[in-house]
Parts: sequence; structure tokens; C-alpha cells
Amino acid sequence: MSREKVNSADVALIRFWVPVEVRYSDLDAQGHVNNATFFTYFEQGRVAFFAELRARHSEHSEHTAISEEGSTSAQSALPGADAPDLPFVVASASCAYRRPIAGLAPVMVGVRCSRITHATIEMEYAVCATPGGLLYATGTTSTVSIDPATGRPRALPAWARLALERMS
Amino acid sequence: MSREKVNSADVALIRFWVPVEVRYSDLDAQGHVNNATFFTYFEQGRVAFFAELRARHSEHSEHTAISEEGSTSAQSALPGADAPDLPFVVASASCAYRRPIAGLAPVMVGVRCSRITHATIEMEYAVCATPGGLLYATGTTSTVSIDPATGRPRALPAWARLALERMS
Amino acid sequence: MSREKVNSADVALIRFWVPVEVRYSDLDAQGHVNNATFFTYFEQGRVAFFAELRARHSEHSEHTAISEEGSTSAQSALPGADAPDLPFVVASASCAYRRPIAGLAPVMVGVRCSRITHATIEMEYAVCATPGGLLYATGTTSTVSIDPATGRPRALPAWARLALERMS
Amino acid sequence: MSREKVNSADVALIRFWVPVEVRYSDLDAQGHVNNATFFTYFEQGRVAFFAELRARHSEHSEHTAISEEGSTSAQSALPGADAPDLPFVVASASCAYRRPIAGLAPVMVGVRCSRITHATIEMEYAVCATPGGLLYATGTTSTVSIDPATGRPRALPAWARLALERMS
Repeated sequence: MSREKVNSADVALIRFWVPVEVRYSDLDAQGHVNNATFFTYFEQGRVAFFAELRARHSEHSEHTAISEEGSTSAQSALPGADAPDLPFVVASASCAYRRPIAGLAPVMVGVRCSRITHATIEMEYAVCATPGGLLYATGTTSTVSIDPATGRPRALPAWARLALERMS
Repeated sequence: MSREKVNSADVALIRFWVPVEVRYSDLDAQGHVNNATFFTYFEQGRVAFFAELRARHSEHSEHTAISEEGSTSAQSALPGADAPDLPFVVASASCAYRRPIAGLAPVMVGVRCSRITHATIEMEYAVCATPGGLLYATGTTSTVSIDPATGRPRALPAWARLALERMS
Repeated sequence: MSREKVNSADVALIRFWVPVEVRYSDLDAQGHVNNATFFTYFEQGRVAFFAELRARHSEHSEHTAISEEGSTSAQSALPGADAPDLPFVVASASCAYRRPIAGLAPVMVGVRCSRITHATIEMEYAVCATPGGLLYATGTTSTVSIDPATGRPRALPAWARLALERMS
Repeated sequence: MSREKVNSADVALIRFWVPVEVRYSDLDAQGHVNNATFFTYFEQGRVAFFAELRARHSEHSEHTAISEEGSTSAQSALPGADAPDLPFVVASASCAYRRPIAGLAPVMVGVRCSRITHATIEMEYAVCATPGGLLYATGTTSTVSIDPATGRPRALPAWARLALERMS
């Protein structure tokens, strides 16, 4: 697998960015952020992305409920009106390293959902000095929605599908 | 990028295995080894693989030297007879997660070199309960030989190329 | 608090030792195992110590059960005959660093219980090249037995108290 | 060593606070930030504290230099005018855990220098929800100024001593 084929995250398409704090202990004996730690940065971006997803969903649900005059039951009737948790597992992950992070300057991680299938969310990541600026790495993950009771894949809930489309 | 395409590490071809100690702190809030930690396990395997590479090279060099009677200069004339360090950077990495590691049982990480080009070593990994047994994850990395002074890619030294071929 | 006062772990009294694998990513930009990682090494030692505690308890319980001829109920009547989990939290921890760990050689961590009170187990640790050999660090922790349902301290169960006394 | 004696960091005396990002992977299988990770939080606070120390020193030095009209050599003549690095090793560390951090909310780490001796800086830490607010943990470290060439202790440079006194 060549470097180019590992992933093709399109940084220009990413609109969701959050800062990630580089820790002194993230640096390894070469004085660079260790390769495995980039997946932790992706994870921090993903956690923030899903938190935003739930927040936007909740706002939208409240708005819908308010606009449906006199009806508070409309809100609770919506699938996932309370933005319930979205349990998933990471099925695959990849990173293409562009240049080393050699110090403790904060970095930004960008996240986008690139594709949704029945139970799977495919995401793309970029680690940059500033949103869309100096590029340290790009990455991808495939996460699978699961039933927490059984650990088996299950269809993405409708609320998550809608919220993902709105954030894309 | 679908899960299947992330990598196609062929576990049956892996002959080099080392144990890796799962740490309590590797488990995340789901009670499973965190996804980023698998790249640390790959790294532990890679470090052991390169140590073995250097050890085998040294043995081979010594053997050559001894067989060339009366000639100690033969040894030092070999490229990399002292198995010098092999500085490289990780250019890309991927992992396909098969099943979660849910406890502290030791795991085995398997490593093989799948392809060598001018400056690049492509490697495949597997994390299993036993060598070739119950499979937790497979992975790949692409590592690029660099000149430590400049950080620029440079051709793999001849000793490393030979030693890699012998270990494949 | 001076270095000397941080702890006074008595390495010569430690009889329980387990190997801990130093990881490449444990090294920080100084090329030494990061100071926080020593607490992870202590934790690995503690986990092994408690596993041993439960194993010895189970053996002892089985032995008792077997010796009480014809009575399988004796075993289940013992407090903690099945070596149930021993939920606890770490209330305090300390480490005195003696010399840096500068490479990937395996190290040994030694653990002993230095004092038991109503709900608290005080432990001492040493990180050495070999059991009782070249000393990298000593440490202490205070762990408090808790009721997992409430998170409140509760008396150490009798089986744990007995097993700790047997291991001291 | 009882919990009370581990350290006596006086949170009310701490005036330097920086945010620390709790990572999903900091949580262990109990769903709480792992005990070893608190030392990483202390480290992040310490790194920021020393960066501030150097920044304040540089400002002070520049001010001095500017006031010495026409003399740029005055600046470089000052001990540590360029706020050189302050190499040190951690000689000891302790943490007293007050309550678990059970989620991803950002936390604040507070740092103060509690005592300076010939070559040693003793520091106190607090991890809180807000500066001086809900307390998760307190801690201490003892760091020793070293000669990077030899690794041996050496007297704190005058600039650091002055800057520490100004920040206390």
C-alpha cells in the first residue's frame, strides 16, 4: 500500500475544526509526536464532532417542538429527540503523515463525515497548524454503529443520519 | 475507504512474532484496548523486528568474517558490518480492527516486510491471542529511510536490504 | 517535601516481582521513560499483585474445601471463596526517581503491601533492572477499598485481609 | 504514608492556572481519568509554568536592555538574557486524589513554586474544575537543575532564581 493510497482525505472539504493540545509526553525519543498519537488526535476530533452532532440535533428537535404549537409530545415523539448516545466501534483507521510535529504548539484537528452507509460512518481527518493551513497528517476512520447490548452492528438511528447530513 | 480495503495483511505469511503486554491503562472507558494503542503494539513489534534484523545481520557479518580466514578487515569492509542504526520515519499506517481486546491477557504481535522499494519498507502486522491464532487486528505501515541530518529520504542501506530479504 | 521524604520503600523487603515491558512510546523527548509512566509501571505491578492475591486465595479456599471431606458447601461458605473482585480507588501515589530508564530493556517492578488498615491498603514499589538489582525508582500508593455501587469506602473483605497477610 | 501526609499543596496560594484537555483515552476501564495521567496533567502545567517563566524573564531583560540606551550588548551580557533552556530532571512526584474525573470536561491545572534550594525547585499542583474550584487532586514535584552534558545537578542559574521569585 503506497503512501498516496492510504487515504485521500480532502482537507479543503473539512469545515469542522477543534484545537488539540500537544502534550510533552506525546513526543517520543525523536522529539516528534509519536505516530500512534495522531489517532488519539483524530479521536479527540471525532468526540467533539459527535458532541456537536448531538448538540445540533437537540437544537433542531427543540426548534421543531416549539414550532409545533402546543405540542411538547412532538419532541419526545421524534426519534432520538434527547440525542441519545450513539454507540459505535472503530472498524478501521489510517493515517498519512506529511510532516512531523516537533514541539508543543497547539494543533487543530479537522473532521468530516465522507460517507454514510447502513450502519457505517466513514470519516476523514486532518491535523494542521491552523484550519486548512500547514498540514501535518490526514486520516480516515470507519466507525460502525452497534447495539451496546450485543456488540452487533445495527442501522444508524434516523436522528444521527439526519444530523450527519446537516453537518456535511 | 471500506474496511476491507484498509489493508490486506496476510497473517499466514507472518513468521516473526513477539509478545506485547496489554496494560490496564490501555483499556478505555468501553473496557477495550483503545484503537490508537494498536499502533503502539505495531510499533513494539516493529522495534523488535528491526532489533532482530540488526542481530541477524551482525551474526551473518561475523560468520563471513570468521570464514574468511585471517581477515578481520573483511568484516569491517562489509557495508554496515556493525549493524548501524537504520533511521526512518513512519509515512503511513493503517489498522483493521477485527475484535476488541477486552482484558489484560498478553497478546502477540506479528510483523513482516511485505515490500521494499528504493527508500521505503512496507510492513504488515497482526495482533493475535497466539501466533496466527485468534485475530484482533491487522495493520500496515510504510516507513521511509531518512538521512538523520537532513530528514530527507535516502536509499535503504545495502545491509538492511540484504537482511530484510533474508528475514522474508 | 524533600526527595528523601517522598517515600521510604524498602526494596529489600519486596518479594513479589513481575517484568514490565518498556515501550518505545514511553520514552519522551529526553530519550528517557517519562516520569508519569512510572505510575503505569506501578499499576502493572499492582494488577499482577492483586491477581496473585486472588489466585492464592482461590487455591487456599479449594484446599480447605477439599480437606473438608464431602463438603463442597464449605467452600462456598467461605467469605470470598470465589475470589471476587476487590474494587478500590487510588487515594495517593508517589515516586522517587533514582536514575533514568534510557532504553527499551525490560524492567522488573516489585510490589509489597506495607500496611493494612480498616479500608486501606498501603503498598510499596520498586522499579529495577533485575529483582532488587539496579534501582530506577521507588514508589508508594494508598488504595482504598470501595463499595462499587456507591463509591464510598468500605472495610476490606476478610478474604483480602487474610490473603494480604499470607503474601506479606 | 497516609493520604494526608503525601502532600500539602495549598491550593489557595496558587495563582498560575492553565487549561488541560481531558482526552477520551485518558479514561480507563472504570470510566475515570487514570491515576498516572494526573502526573501528565501536572507536567502540562509545569511546562506552561516554565514557558511563562522564560517569557517574563525575556520581557524583563528586554526592558532592561532598552532602558540602557544604545546598548544592545547589555542584553546579551545579562545572565540568561535569551531565556535559555532550563534543563532539569524530576526527582520525585506525588499526587493525592480527591475525587475522580469522570468525563471529558476540560480541567484547570494550577502550579506554584513552593521552595527553591541550591539546585532544586519544589512545586505544588492542583487539578480543579475551575481555578481554585472543585478539586480533583493536588500534587507535588521536586525537580533538579542539571548540566545536560553530564546529567549532574548544578546550581539553578541566576535568571531562573530571579524569575521564580518574581512569579511567587
